[in-house]
Amino acid sequence: MSLMLYCLNGPNLNLLGTREPEIYGTDTLADIEKMMSKSANDLGAKLVFRQSNHEGELIDWIQEARTKASALILNAAAYTHTSIAIHDALKTLEIPVIELHLSNPHSREPFRAKSYVAPCAHGVIAGFGSAGYRLSVEAAITLVNKRSKN
Amino acid sequence: MSLMLYCLNGPNLNLLGTREPEIYGTDTLADIEKMMSKSANDLGAKLVFRQSNHEGELIDWIQEARTKASALILNAAAYTHTSIAIHDALKTLEIPVIELHLSNPHSREPFRAKSYVAPCAHGVIAGFGSAGYRLSVEAAITLVNKRSKN
Amino acid sequence: MSLMLYCLNGPNLNLLGTREPEIYGTDTLADIEKMMSKSANDLGAKLVFRQSNHEGELIDWIQEARTKASALILNAAAYTHTSIAIHDALKTLEIPVIELHLSNPHSREPFRAKSYVAPCAHGVIAGFGSAGYRLSVEAAITLVNKRSKN
Amino acid sequence: MSLMLYCLNGPNLNLLGTREPEIYGTDTLADIEKMMSKSANDLGAKLVFRQSNHEGELIDWIQEARTKASALILNAAAYTHTSIAIHDALKTLEIPVIELHLSNPHSREPFRAKSYVAPCAHGVIAGFGSAGYRLSVEAAITLVNKRSKN
Amino acid sequence: MSLMLYCLNGPNLNLLGTREPEIYGTDTLADIEKMMSKSANDLGAKLVFRQSNHEGELIDWIQEARTKASALILNAAAYTHTSIAIHDALKTLEIPVIELHLSNPHSREPFRAKSYVAPCAHGVIAGFGSAGYRLSVEAAITLVNKRSKN
Amino acid sequence: MSLMLYCLNGPNLNLLGTREPEIYGTDTLADIEKMMSKSANDLGAKLVFRQSNHEGELIDWIQEARTKASALILNAAAYTHTSIAIHDALKTLEIPVIELHLSNPHSREPFRAKSYVAPCAHGVIAGFGSAGYRLSVEAAITLVNKRSKN
Amino acid sequence: MSLMLYCLNGPNLNLLGTREPEIYGTDTLADIEKMMSKSANDLGAKLVFRQSNHEGELIDWIQEARTKASALILNAAAYTHTSIAIHDALKTLEIPVIELHLSNPHSREPFRAKSYVAPCAHGVIAGFGSAGYRLSVEAAITLVNKRSKN
Amino acid sequence: MSLMLYCLNGPNLNLLGTREPEIYGTDTLADIEKMMSKSANDLGAKLVFRQSNHEGELIDWIQEARTKASALILNAAAYTHTSIAIHDALKTLEIPVIELHLSNPHSREPFRAKSYVAPCAHGVIAGFGSAGYRLSVEAAITLVNKRSKN
Amino acid sequence: MSLMLYCLNGPNLNLLGTREPEIYGTDTLADIEKMMSKSANDLGAKLVFRQSNHEGELIDWIQEARTKASALILNAAAYTHTSIAIHDALKTLEIPVIELHLSNPHSREPFRAKSYVAPCAHGVIAGFGSAGYRLSVEAAITLVNKRSKN
Amino acid sequence: MSLMLYCLNGPNLNLLGTREPEIYGTDTLADIEKMMSKSANDLGAKLVFRQSNHEGELIDWIQEARTKASALILNAAAYTHTSIAIHDALKTLEIPVIELHLSNPHSREPFRAKSYVAPCAHGVIAGFGSAGYRLSVEAAITLVNKRSKN
Amino acid sequence: MSLMLYCLNGPNLNLLGTREPEIYGTDTLADIEKMMSKSANDLGAKLVFRQSNHEGELIDWIQEARTKASALILNAAAYTHTSIAIHDALKTLEIPVIELHLSNPHSREPFRAKSYVAPCAHGVIAGFGSAGYRLSVEAAITLVNKRSKN
Amino acid sequence: MSLMLYCLNGPNLNLLGTREPEIYGTDTLADIEKMMSKSANDLGAKLVFRQSNHEGELIDWIQEARTKASALILNAAAYTHTSIAIHDALKTLEIPVIELHLSNPHSREPFRAKSYVAPCAHGVIAGFGSAGYRLSVEAAITLVNKRSKN
Repeated sequence: MSLMLYCLNGPNLNLLGTREPEIYGTDTLADIEKMMSKSANDLGAKLVFRQSNHEGELIDWIQEARTKASALILNAAAYTHTSIAIHDALKTLEIPVIELHLSNPHSREPFRAKSYVAPCAHGVIAGFGSAGYRLSVEAAITLVNKRSKN
Repeated sequence: MSLMLYCLNGPNLNLLGTREPEIYGTDTLADIEKMMSKSANDLGAKLVFRQSNHEGELIDWIQEARTKASALILNAAAYTHTSIAIHDALKTLEIPVIELHLSNPHSREPFRAKSYVAPCAHGVIAGFGSAGYRLSVEAAITLVNKRSKN
Repeated sequence: MSLMLYCLNGPNLNLLGTREPEIYGTDTLADIEKMMSKSANDLGAKLVFRQSNHEGELIDWIQEARTKASALILNAAAYTHTSIAIHDALKTLEIPVIELHLSNPHSREPFRAKSYVAPCAHGVIAGFGSAGYRLSVEAAITLVNKRSKN
Repeated sequence: MSLMLYCLNGPNLNLLGTREPEIYGTDTLADIEKMMSKSANDLGAKLVFRQSNHEGELIDWIQEARTKASALILNAAAYTHTSIAIHDALKTLEIPVIELHLSNPHSREPFRAKSYVAPCAHGVIAGFGSAGYRLSVEAAITLVNKRSKN
Repeated sequence: MSLMLYCLNGPNLNLLGTREPEIYGTDTLADIEKMMSKSANDLGAKLVFRQSNHEGELIDWIQEARTKASALILNAAAYTHTSIAIHDALKTLEIPVIELHLSNPHSREPFRAKSYVAPCAHGVIAGFGSAGYRLSVEAAITLVNKRSKN
Repeated sequence: MSLMLYCLNGPNLNLLGTREPEIYGTDTLADIEKMMSKSANDLGAKLVFRQSNHEGELIDWIQEARTKASALILNAAAYTHTSIAIHDALKTLEIPVIELHLSNPHSREPFRAKSYVAPCAHGVIAGFGSAGYRLSVEAAITLVNKRSKN
Repeated sequence: MSLMLYCLNGPNLNLLGTREPEIYGTDTLADIEKMMSKSANDLGAKLVFRQSNHEGELIDWIQEARTKASALILNAAAYTHTSIAIHDALKTLEIPVIELHLSNPHSREPFRAKSYVAPCAHGVIAGFGSAGYRLSVEAAITLVNKRSKN
Repeated sequence: MSLMLYCLNGPNLNLLGTREPEIYGTDTLADIEKMMSKSANDLGAKLVFRQSNHEGELIDWIQEARTKASALILNAAAYTHTSIAIHDALKTLEIPVIELHLSNPHSREPFRAKSYVAPCAHGVIAGFGSAGYRLSVEAAITLVNKRSKN
Repeated sequence: MSLMLYCLNGPNLNLLGTREPEIYGTDTLADIEKMMSKSANDLGAKLVFRQSNHEGELIDWIQEARTKASALILNAAAYTHTSIAIHDALKTLEIPVIELHLSNPHSREPFRAKSYVAPCAHGVIAGFGSAGYRLSVEAAITLVNKRSKN
Repeated sequence: MSLMLYCLNGPNLNLLGTREPEIYGTDTLADIEKMMSKSANDLGAKLVFRQSNHEGELIDWIQEARTKASALILNAAAYTHTSIAIHDALKTLEIPVIELHLSNPHSREPFRAKSYVAPCAHGVIAGFGSAGYRLSVEAAITLVNKRSKN
Repeated sequence: MSLMLYCLNGPNLNLLGTREPEIYGTDTLADIEKMMSKSANDLGAKLVFRQSNHEGELIDWIQEARTKASALILNAAAYTHTSIAIHDALKTLEIPVIELHLSNPHSREPFRAKSYVAPCAHGVIAGFGSAGYRLSVEAAITLVNKRSKN
Repeated sequence: MSLMLYCLNGPNLNLLGTREPEIYGTDTLADIEKMMSKSANDLGAKLVFRQSNHEGELIDWIQEARTKASALILNAAAYTHTSIAIHDALKTLEIPVIELHLSNPHSREPFRAKSYVAPCAHGVIAGFGSAGYRLSVEAAITLVNKRSKN
């Protein structure tokens, strides 16, 4: 049976590619989903890819991933720094979780230094822009395989 | 006229009974609602029992309790520690409010030490697992009766 | 073409006029919308006026204002102090943003001292009760005109 | 053999009922002991009920409860916030411990936010005035029974 | 009898219009006084307008406003963040006080986040440059009228 | 009926006069009691004067002062900085309370900057060595008289 | 030769007796000067008594006291909490310094907890209202006499 | 004349050997006293060995050691971290003081990082379990001998 | 000309594979170098791979990378959290820098939360064990190529 | 045209040479002015040299230096640590500013660690006593010359 | 086979005996090594004794101790307070580690309160000067023996 | 005999003149050494001038300066902010120490605000770029001469 990857994206990421392209690049979220699906397929995996500005909806989806996904790639954007509720949802997962960021949060405002996702994440990939999404596919599959070996 | 109790439950409590049963017990939220309704009925009260992962929906319900409930029992889960919006909604209530937790937040991570519910709550019951729901029914009715006497 | 002002209101402001009238006055949010629309029309502007208890919905609307509004007047209420997601949404705007509060947050609880709206706001109006909504119309148009001159 | 409950009360609680009755009620500590003994007896338990202004005496009694009691209900009053020695005594217990407060410490001065009892307590009941003592009897017995089942 | 408004300006505001015009505009303090006087007159009020670099002189003037003014508009500049003495002088006033700033202090250095004026101010207007002075006239008169109605 | 003053002294003050006389003077606590009794008598008051190293005993005595004394002069020594239990006992008093220290705690270690006595004290006298005891008699009687006038 | 006492008063104390008489009493600063001069004369001392809202003027006077006074009684009011410059001026004195406050700063806002006067003061008298001025005369003379003995 | 060592033990140490033997060992306090007396005798010293749960009693004994002991070995247990009163008592001693702990407080909870004993102690021995008592006898005698040489 | 990657490893990484294999895996640093060289070669790049326990030596090598490398992959281990000197060395580089960690530092001790490498790194890869080294090769080449395009 | 240097001195520096000569030396401020004028003349510059205890007066002078001076040497003494108003005045200058201190503030009380002058100063000279004034003349001229070259 | 003890000494300890002899004594590090070797030999153990000013070299030696030593006695001097790298090296050890200091760090500057060695050390000996080295030999052997028994 | 000055330079200063010349100038460290040697010779002094990226090597050299130098000029660069070991080495010196920085650390990142060199330095020169090296020669000789006079 093929692997199922969930990639969930938090608030304001729907604007990607349309604002500050010199920082975030010109790839839209749709472009990223296409590229990422291809990477997943190449490696024999399927991809569920969603975005929401609503904290509660992200929690609903994380709970859904609990039973349906082999791994979760989460770019929680601003909720990374404020949502203990997402933290608690992540703690109920038994699948690998990857924390993903377009830019390096530690080189931004101090209030982005705190991550409630980090203590629940097995790995972190940050600062590689849209290329980070591609790297995270490979990384997620590596983590899933390592587990199935043990 | 019989008393109306509102019991509102915050994020991830819908998973109760299905994860970490050695910590949280095997009672599901549906089991708890049933047990709690029975306790309420035995004491001549009705119960509205709901759960949501959405902060905004919890606020909508707290505002509804403002005009419909005799007392509010609130297990705000993770939003306890982050939601000033829930705090503000609670401050508009004139009915008794009970802060309820399955486990004792003070014996967990430091970021759970802060409670925005506490300054608006008349009483706190924490650490008794699902039995706390039953205790809170009795406690809520005590608070309502004490008021109606004065 | 006439100016389009967006006025967005955060959690619990729908209760305005019905609680603690000695503090917040007896004007309801509908009264304020009416008064504010009139002020806008007198100055040749249109007004979109909304309220939500949901952080995600406010973000959706701020993103909408990005392409449709000439200026944004935001009373984010409790989310002012906790929402980095609203902060990020505001940072994508190129129109003037006014932070509005009914009361002066600095004379209230310490946890209201922090504002995630402030770093994204061009101006702040606070403490004037419902009259602040009227002042903010005039202030917003001043800011828009100043820009169009430069 | 019947259950033995220890209820220990800390500094200044001997003044109960004689000061600020509008806050703490008119029940004296003797009234509470009587009511609580009755509740215990109704549920087939015995009660040891004591008060002291001396930190050392409370520690002596907690050590005594170690071998003689089935559960400990502790209203440590001001020592809650300052006594690591009581914390250490509690950590030697293997019986259930309930932290009890007349009012909700979190809605009082900041120096009452810290509790050295909390990390050693299985449950917390706070804010219900003298009714909390009655609730704690029921809660304590619930905890003892849950243990004996496992 | 016509209203008397006091507008007091703190340290370095005498340099307005001569430095960093791209930030603070090209209006001098004299220009602002003229514009503000006209606004006041149009609304039937008189204006006393002064500037000093001396904390003590500002305190003397605030004390003078105590008996002579109907409302005080105060741009305390740097003393906003350091002067408890001005805070104490303001607390002796029974007239409305408006805290005024050219720019938004919360988007500047952290040491400007603290305001000793704020706890004594009924309203805050910040970030509108010299236009804020005009807004504050209208706001001050609104506050005075609201009071005389009650 | 003559006034009754209670002067209570905390830990280690029994060593007065025998250690570091160049700092604390050569007066023993017995000398001070004698001098203070005389001052009280001269002003028509009686004096109860005690010392204890035990926090609990000091609380017992403060409770005793509640019904027997016209004013309390308290040199709580080290317990000033750590005892919330003494703070709570003082808050039950309706008589004037004077906080007394031999030396000025603010010119000593940082951990002596915090005083739990201060929020319950009407007046503070510190830094005058044994002469402070004499000053406090006069000050206490002044406070008692001022009250009886109102 | 008779002793010369300097009593210097900081910002806003010139308003004494005219505002909040229920807190600060109805004595004006002139009343206090008269009463204090009489106390000084009765004990064979002269009094220089001044008030200023200007930090710099208070420093000038403290420097004057350096060569002309036998003791300094300083009620620095708000400058107590902010003025390192007054602290430095006080450190150049070799005469006794008494820190005086009408109310007890520790039972007020947290920003009044810090005192830059305290580390330079030999004694503190606070909370006795205008009676504190009289006590400070006696206290100052006690300190001067103790020195001249050694 | 032979040396006299005082070894004083704080709260809960009377339970030694009866709880958590895998951490604290199976030696009771009586076993330790016996072993320690023997070590002292072997080195020509006598030993006074006591334990109390009462802070005040420990202070009484420290004061007694002031005139009767050649050196003090103090395991203040929990009072190490909270008692300024014990700190003050220790500061009156002129004999060597050794701070003793069974385990290493720095590898435990953060609230055990602060030691009020440390600034008064000449040496610290921690983490060696009951063997630390034996080491402290040798260490104490070394310190006494070093002094008598100088 | 082929790309030159520098991979520098900080203190204690030479022990990899020999301690806590259940956490860090059984791969030695030599195994990792071999695997990483192969990955680099496959992608047409060369690899310099070194380890040192000496902060100064790591700085020397970072300076060397300044003129010789196309990209730097740095696992600074413990020096990540303490070395401003490494931070300064990194700031002199104009090539892409990747911060690499075997485990996720944010789920470890608080003193590992601070990173002096982060503000100088373009991307972060953490938590993937030795697989992270392979991912970083691909990531580094992506960053180099993105630059050469612009 | 010759260079014009402004050297401004803050509170209590008028006492130089008359107090604590073992720390601050025996040079009076007049001596320093004479020595400094000579150094300036030797290097072809003129010197304006002033002292004030008044924060407002120092601000007036700094504003004067804005148009009249080639460089400013400022020993703000205690105002260094508290005056944001002086900070703001300095930020309006376009000439070089040198922060000067007689002693090294970082080896004194912690409250002297903060400098509001430092962020506006091009260079700092501290700890050389009166010789620092001479060094600062040379340093100021170096900075002026470096600018005129660019 | 005889026990092998490693005693490693950190920065500036090579100067022992030559500076501040009134504090640190006149024993040089060579004297201490001689005395310590003798103690070790008397107890049937061998000693490796080294000193370095280089953090990296100390780490190299700690790693060497990992395979060659029965116990490690570490006086890391200043690196105690700053070196997470040494902390990490110590955590790889399975032998007993003793933290040794000549003086009591807690009675020195606040920046010496933090110890990165403490969480990895089984025991601490501090404040006994060169005698602490001798005590640590005995203590180390006690710890080794206790382990071999279990 | 001629004076011997030691000038020691910390990490990354070997890159001077080759990076960010618009900030640090185009002078290399070799240029500075030449200029500084000339200044020293002109004033009859010799100069030892060295640079290292290794903390331990800088400590070795500071210890060497202890016996060979008349004064030490130290630009510890990044180690200024992190090295207690350098602090301890400096405290063993009896010669004057000058803390030197190219730029003003207080106008840079917050983590450069802390200086472990400052408490051991007699004087500080910062912000004058390479000219600061020349000023420090003159300053060092002034300090040496002042001492030899006393």
